Amino acid sequence: MTTVGEALSALCTPALVVDVDKVKRNAQMMIERCQKLGVQLRPHMKTHKTLECADIMTGGSRRCIVVSTLAEACFYADHGFDDILYAYSLPFDKVERCAALSERLDLFQVLLDHPQALEQLKKRPLRDGRRWHTEGVELTGIYAHCGNTYNCRGVEQIQAVAQETTSFTLQFMEKLKAAGITCKSSIGSTPSCSHPVKDMAQLSEVHPGNYTFYDVQQSVIGSCSLEDVAVRVLTRVIGHCPHRNQLLIDCGWTGLSLDGAGKLPTGYAMIEGHPNLKLLSMTQEHGRVEPISGPLDYSKYPLGSLLTLIPYHSCATAMMHPVYHVHSGGRLLGKWTPTRGW
Amino acid sequence: MTTVGEALSALCTPALVVDVDKVKRNAQMMIERCQKLGVQLRPHMKTHKTLECADIMTGGSRRCIVVSTLAEACFYADHGFDDILYAYSLPFDKVERCAALSERLDLFQVLLDHPQALEQLKKRPLRDGRRWHTEGVELTGIYAHCGNTYNCRGVEQIQAVAQETTSFTLQFMEKLKAAGITCKSSIGSTPSCSHPVKDMAQLSEVHPGNYTFYDVQQSVIGSCSLEDVAVRVLTRVIGHCPHRNQLLIDCGWTGLSLDGAGKLPTGYAMIEGHPNLKLLSMTQEHGRVEPISGPLDYSKYPLGSLLTLIPYHSCATAMMHPVYHVHSGGRLLGKWTPTRGW
Repeated sequence: MTTVGEALSALCTPALVVDVDKVKRNAQMMIERCQKLGVQLRPHMKTHKTLECADIMTGGSRRCIVVSTLAEACFYADHGFDDILYAYSLPFDKVERCAALSERLDLFQVLLDHPQALEQLKKRPLRDGRRWHTEGVELTGIYAHCGNTYNCRGVEQIQAVAQETTSFTLQFMEKLKAAGITCKSSIGSTPSCSHPVKDMAQLSEVHPGNYTFYDVQQSVIGSCSLEDVAVRVLTRVIGHCPHRNQLLIDCGWTGLSLDGAGKLPTGYAMIEGHPNLKLLSMTQEHGRVEPISGPLDYSKYPLGSLLTLIPYHSCATAMMHPVYHVHSGGRLLGKWTPTRGW
Repeated sequence: MTTVGEALSALCTPALVVDVDKVKRNAQMMIERCQKLGVQLRPHMKTHKTLECADIMTGGSRRCIVVSTLAEACFYADHGFDDILYAYSLPFDKVERCAALSERLDLFQVLLDHPQALEQLKKRPLRDGRRWHTEGVELTGIYAHCGNTYNCRGVEQIQAVAQETTSFTLQFMEKLKAAGITCKSSIGSTPSCSHPVKDMAQLSEVHPGNYTFYDVQQSVIGSCSLEDVAVRVLTRVIGHCPHRNQLLIDCGWTGLSLDGAGKLPTGYAMIEGHPNLKLLSMTQEHGRVEPISGPLDYSKYPLGSLLTLIPYHSCATAMMHPVYHVHSGGRLLGKWTPTRGW
């Protein structure tokens, strides 16, 4: 068991560690970016799914968030959060659970993308004088995720997609307005919100999520620099395999996920401070590391020594961990426990 | 919330469902196979990590198991299991935790594969008159995993690898014997233990794990038939995308894992009863399904309808679920809760 104030090296590995100072800085920068732009920030919780990070992202207001599962919605509702947007086209098997959340919260928003979904809602009227904002079709807002920003490389490309998505959304709002419908609008994605374009000020909200943690993928896209990435997986060398010119580490796919296959010259992750090392493959609890070129100098990697992985996709890596170890300047502060399931 | 006796369709999706009758049959067949062969079965817990399945695999004895993490070891020890083999080359950061388990259990076995690991153990003598079986190097046994069976296709190839691994292990035992050392021997892998060769009777133990669940990968290898696979992920159609000739389902990589990429013509899984459908790609909470050929007949897949995924790798899929829903003949019996972490 580790205690507060200990060094990261006190942790048993593999361990997901979160640099809380970077998280706070990333969150604060997004808050300021949105304030400057004049658009409401509605942060997405799906990357971390913890109370502590949600508090940092909402500046402690516990209001105006997005979630990807009803498990998250209930978890946050249970802890005093409100104005929760469930960013998922209404699943027909979860109408009752959505109705229950609508009845207990001041504001719970669901997405509809099909007339049949509207019928499903109408079949379950809300109690206590509440109502779905759907009668006669009263639209609350339009929600779009510019997932195509993930193919971008560099700020210029990101901003081109951000501009395109914003323009499409605003044009659609104009058409709705011409039909007598006014409503809110929200677009998302960490790349576009890390480098917003001016026209995004005309939207009601933005809903990025990954930006408090960031990851190698976001640095490759250009959303952030590698120094901004707030999460790492600590792992230890547990084997020398000179006949294969490889090291074994104690991080398999249970500690990192299989996301990022074939995306990086360094394999499934980057190994901090060792640009010539590649995480070649993983089994359930083992990782195989080899040099990108040349023979491995085993004296640099004694058995038991620590290596630090920067994850390709922090959403996928965080999902594998039942607990995150939080530190400031390499000293442990405590643990964050995410919610899981659906 | 679902109740006992309800149909599987009462579950919110995605959901991992376990056919307990198949689990029991697979477990019983392995028990009988080992009895017939005359070799001790030491089942591996890493696929499911639950008490209930461990009871089925050990025939209720709660003795003689293998685990892949110390979290599993502690979980099983806390629930009265003993004679636990931690099938992991002794990690230097976990010597104290291994020592504590050795002191509280009748028998806790660790693996050594390096002289430095032996030094680590010797630095932490056990209390209460217990001792590591290492002084003067007294070997308890040899442990091998014939992971190369996973490249096999069909019983003949599996048995060739099983024979080779057994022969190598027995030859090594002979060399040890010539040096005055007698000890136990154990080999593993679900393929080799599903189709054992006669010489495996000369080993002390076998340690397969995946066989109670099995999966598509094991059926491709030839360890089992598809009918033997005891786990499924239930998912629902949540979107029609005729412009892409695709369906959206509510199972992303959080519900299935990314294991199996590029391995099957049907994508990341098989969709039961729909051999022409392919699970093309997944995001965190969405899956994209398209036909292998031809246009999609959307009338066969109404919004809200259930699809059943047979996982490529049940170890990886089970890891993504905080709870497994157990059924007999399609009627829910209850839930199994796995342990997680390290």
